[in-house]
Amino acid sequence: MNKITKLFGIDYPIIQGGMVWVSGGKLAAAVSRAGGLGLIGAGSMQPELLQRHITKAQSLTSRPIGVNIPLLYEKAHEQIDMALSLGIKIFFTSAGSPKKYTSYLKDHGATVVHVISTPEHAINCEEAGVDAVVAEGFEAGGHNGRDEITTLTLIPQARSAIKIPLIAAGGIADGKSILAALSLGADGVQMGTRFLMTRESSAHENFKSLLLQSTASSTMTLMKSTIPVRLFNNKFAREIMQIEQSFHGDNLKQKLNEHLGKFRARHGMLEGDLENGELEVGQSVSLIKNILSVEDVFKELLHDYQEAYKKLSQSL
Amino acid sequence: MNKITKLFGIDYPIIQGGMVWVSGGKLAAAVSRAGGLGLIGAGSMQPELLQRHITKAQSLTSRPIGVNIPLLYEKAHEQIDMALSLGIKIFFTSAGSPKKYTSYLKDHGATVVHVISTPEHAINCEEAGVDAVVAEGFEAGGHNGRDEITTLTLIPQARSAIKIPLIAAGGIADGKSILAALSLGADGVQMGTRFLMTRESSAHENFKSLLLQSTASSTMTLMKSTIPVRLFNNKFAREIMQIEQSFHGDNLKQKLNEHLGKFRARHGMLEGDLENGELEVGQSVSLIKNILSVEDVFKELLHDYQEAYKKLSQSL
Repeated sequence: MNKITKLFGIDYPIIQGGMVWVSGGKLAAAVSRAGGLGLIGAGSMQPELLQRHITKAQSLTSRPIGVNIPLLYEKAHEQIDMALSLGIKIFFTSAGSPKKYTSYLKDHGATVVHVISTPEHAINCEEAGVDAVVAEGFEAGGHNGRDEITTLTLIPQARSAIKIPLIAAGGIADGKSILAALSLGADGVQMGTRFLMTRESSAHENFKSLLLQSTASSTMTLMKSTIPVRLFNNKFAREIMQIEQSFHGDNLKQKLNEHLGKFRARHGMLEGDLENGELEVGQSVSLIKNILSVEDVFKELLHDYQEAYKKLSQSL
Repeated sequence: MNKITKLFGIDYPIIQGGMVWVSGGKLAAAVSRAGGLGLIGAGSMQPELLQRHITKAQSLTSRPIGVNIPLLYEKAHEQIDMALSLGIKIFFTSAGSPKKYTSYLKDHGATVVHVISTPEHAINCEEAGVDAVVAEGFEAGGHNGRDEITTLTLIPQARSAIKIPLIAAGGIADGKSILAALSLGADGVQMGTRFLMTRESSAHENFKSLLLQSTASSTMTLMKSTIPVRLFNNKFAREIMQIEQSFHGDNLKQKLNEHLGKFRARHGMLEGDLENGELEVGQSVSLIKNILSVEDVFKELLHDYQEAYKKLSQSL
């Protein structure tokens, strides 16, 4: 039992990252049933839809389930109240200040974890009273830190900066990378893309199949002039790149926003439009060679971790 | 003894990366004396200067010393012949095809290692007959892969792609990150910035002092439209950023080349012009809190590695 398994009451220090359009109640319940912590990604959800996903997850497991709330969403407060009213006790907050809702959530008896991408933000989290921090490196899919700090350099620095439990995210997808994250001082890991590529995720089957063909160079971070995001290199991403090579300044920002439009992520990730949709995915995608059930993912992770551990020697 | 210590005849699988203006004969000899492998960074050197550095290193130690040759340099062949004539038996080649000189070097009895930044390039190296590969992630200082693949995701994929020994580079600066690299399947590590920040490196004292004040956000990758390079965020780097935000296309490339000019790296790194010089440094810079002798760096690395190993458990 370590700090993370104790904090959440779970078997393994493995958390499934909240992902828009991909991690609903079905996936979160499957992860929690397997002994990790499943998170419902509330980012893209109206409060009523979030209610349905929470209720569904609770019907599938009595184990702890969490919700990930991106705080920049205008309905974040409604989402929080909805989740609290349904008995959710674990909140991962992101994309905003940890000061915004931590006291409110703690007053309602919840455990609060905040996602950061620099060591300085980790300190802000500890000062705001959160219970643990997810330190997410440049490798991660979707929205991403502006400073491009990778997991390998972020984790040891976040570890030195704070005393509360630390969860590593970004680029972690197998037993070897979990071992690496713990070597760096993390108490646990959060994985997105690995759980996106499971039977239980709500990613479109076309999207999952596409990801099985990826290489180490298949993702890229784009839109650095607005909100940086790591995407799969498809037609849409190449169009964004073309715009970034053809404009600069305010003109660039306007063109990017026009081209992005609305619902691009839903079209791509949920509805399977692999050409014109926005496909958020982490750099670890090419480490993943199969679509498994969540239960089998856990078996593989635990086995691979042990195998990798056995190969280490105790001195250099 | 592992594959890397055996290949080079050294005590620890720790290699000091070849760095322009920073890693001459003095630093390379100190690293080899401490039980690692020191490399003379030939990148910026006229063949006569390389000769002086090799002779100096050989006067300081009888242990193995290597040379790093960036193949895009017009005098690369002259450098290689110079080093061979002085009895150098270990060559690290980079910035070019591994097919270019591997046979030539092997015919002269040398051990050849090539630096790559994608798993596909690792396969090219193995096919070209090199003895080992350095897989260098996005975290590394100086010139960098275009695909921004980080060490955390690059190493396991390079490991799966090739059978020959694998050296991890980029973001590695302490015992924890060495343990992480070995967890991912590397047989050894190459570190640049950690050895730049030693008494024996020829980096200017002002530059070393500046680096002690760095944060996790102090470096950035710039010049992606020409040759990507990771730099310390100083006045020169901010000017480059300004140009990148103000121009695009061929116009951008021209403005960048004009502003870069010549000798920027020498002015910054060797001569200590911290404002107008180009300061190549890796993202691991903020993990490093002291300027030590190379011997003390090795003591610290070995101790930290063991401490980090002890904290791991054999199953999750």
